[in-house]
Amino acid sequence: MQTKSYQFSSASVNYYFDADFSRLEKMIGKEHAVLITDEHIFQAHKKKLKGWNCICLKPGEEYKVQATVDSIIEQLIEFKADRSTWLVGIGGGVVTDITGYVAAVYMRGIKCGFVPTTILAMVDASIGGKNGIDVGIYKNLVGTIRQPQFLLYDYSFLKSLPKQEWVNGFAEIIKHSCIKDLKLFKELEQNKLTHYQKNKPALAKLIRRNSEIKSTVVQADEFEKGERRLLNFGHTLGHAIENMYELSHGQAISIGMTAACQISQKLVGFKDSERVISVLDQYGLPTLANFDKPKAFEVLKMDKKREQKDMNYVLLEKLGKGIVKPIPMTQLEKIVNEL
Amino acid sequence: MQTKSYQFSSASVNYYFDADFSRLEKMIGKEHAVLITDEHIFQAHKKKLKGWNCICLKPGEEYKVQATVDSIIEQLIEFKADRSTWLVGIGGGVVTDITGYVAAVYMRGIKCGFVPTTILAMVDASIGGKNGIDVGIYKNLVGTIRQPQFLLYDYSFLKSLPKQEWVNGFAEIIKHSCIKDLKLFKELEQNKLTHYQKNKPALAKLIRRNSEIKSTVVQADEFEKGERRLLNFGHTLGHAIENMYELSHGQAISIGMTAACQISQKLVGFKDSERVISVLDQYGLPTLANFDKPKAFEVLKMDKKREQKDMNYVLLEKLGKGIVKPIPMTQLEKIVNEL
Repeated sequence: MQTKSYQFSSASVNYYFDADFSRLEKMIGKEHAVLITDEHIFQAHKKKLKGWNCICLKPGEEYKVQATVDSIIEQLIEFKADRSTWLVGIGGGVVTDITGYVAAVYMRGIKCGFVPTTILAMVDASIGGKNGIDVGIYKNLVGTIRQPQFLLYDYSFLKSLPKQEWVNGFAEIIKHSCIKDLKLFKELEQNKLTHYQKNKPALAKLIRRNSEIKSTVVQADEFEKGERRLLNFGHTLGHAIENMYELSHGQAISIGMTAACQISQKLVGFKDSERVISVLDQYGLPTLANFDKPKAFEVLKMDKKREQKDMNYVLLEKLGKGIVKPIPMTQLEKIVNEL
Repeated sequence: MQTKSYQFSSASVNYYFDADFSRLEKMIGKEHAVLITDEHIFQAHKKKLKGWNCICLKPGEEYKVQATVDSIIEQLIEFKADRSTWLVGIGGGVVTDITGYVAAVYMRGIKCGFVPTTILAMVDASIGGKNGIDVGIYKNLVGTIRQPQFLLYDYSFLKSLPKQEWVNGFAEIIKHSCIKDLKLFKELEQNKLTHYQKNKPALAKLIRRNSEIKSTVVQADEFEKGERRLLNFGHTLGHAIENMYELSHGQAISIGMTAACQISQKLVGFKDSERVISVLDQYGLPTLANFDKPKAFEVLKMDKKREQKDMNYVLLEKLGKGIVKPIPMTQLEKIVNEL
């Protein structure tokens, strides 16, 4: 096990890499903890979760809504959860987002930690304190920014991860390389998904590097005034079409990254769109797609990155260097329609 | 107009005392603001609110629930509210609690301010950043602690305040005097409600002094690890019976303060219960009441101030000096049953 601690504005977060889930009991004790997970994880890892107070959610993004939050709160009342209770989210981004949100508002905030069980949650969703739920077609419209106390990485959870979820996670890994790390991008170009699936040390190193990239960006700008916006590369259009077409998050942002590359080409002279598209393709991600452009633009108008008449769009200046550029909404509408 | 600024952990809050509501337009502009108020205020102050984007709630504590939050969020989406939008709560504690909560979670936090229109909101509810909603019989079970950007005090709103609401506010004023300010307690002993209703300078001074007491206590302990707990004097039992019997908040905590005085007498030798009871009575507040003690104790178990087997109870050592004492739940159950 390797440990690392990151200091954020109002909290310090402990990361336990290559750890064993059984460590959790030593850390927080079973008596004052409630675990939140989903039915898939619960079925696949029953043995690990035995003896813990558990709230079990229906799996899937469609349950990342207020009704699920209401139900969790009712169950916490039944467990007589109080301010000394730990809430631990064990799962992918949906589980960690909801758990973090409930922990932020139950009794005005109780302690929480995450055990990410998907590649996407390990390298992205569980890191940085953003939590929340969707409202209708608007993703993460409601939530807070609040750091968990710890992240525990137990790679044995990946054994039950479906192929599509591996692909999903690699969309965020490719994103990190595009905006911040040319060396990582080149490594990804030289390999395939199976390389990381079969080679545990390579996977552990990759996850740790990506966790580092995300944590460092968040540390520099926890409340998203500047640098943190880079992490939205591919996410503006991606979020707009994700719920419209029930795409997976990885598929949606892969299409979003492709579009952002094309916009980068047009607006800031980015030259390597083909290389990005080729890597996305190599890891099983879609790049081109037909979608209802006027409708997508309608949804995009409600994006949290919009400020009045401008959208803060993330573009690539070159591989490994993302930038944020405010684009007037009128111009953006034209660009989206021409994609 | 008098202004004062208090610095809290992550925000500075500007207080505008004796201000005119029309100032609001200069402060934030009408275009990027959404006001939240209730039907009573809206009807009584139509002229003031003309031309503002308004969300109008049904009045009353029974609407301080998630369904109201859901409806506000839907309306914010219709207003195309984004991160540059100001949310301003104009009303009593229910309105400012809900407004603060929605502002804390909509798009992971947008700017907000309050225009308290009741005595209770002016001296207590709108100050200190606690926001939230009730869940079933549990008051404020869900919420956050997050400071508003400003508080604007326009005493002309008090013209439409019903007598019972004046009485409600004085319950918190008496509370402040009991835990922190013997001089204020003596002033209250020498006067009656009508004195403050008829004498604007005396009222303005009283409101400002109480706003100061609360703000200073919160500043010393924003996240309620110690000092801030004093503000819960009368509130532990008070909250438990408030929703059980549909008492007003003032009535409930008045009964709670009476009980807390009796417990103080028993556990820490407090000698002035009679004086407290007499002042509560003088301002039209109930002191003794029959209530279902076992049921009240059941509700009380879920109080946020409970930590495992102890309740952090606020007692009076002497007039003007509150203290926090952890009381084992088993002992507390006995005490409550003997009240």
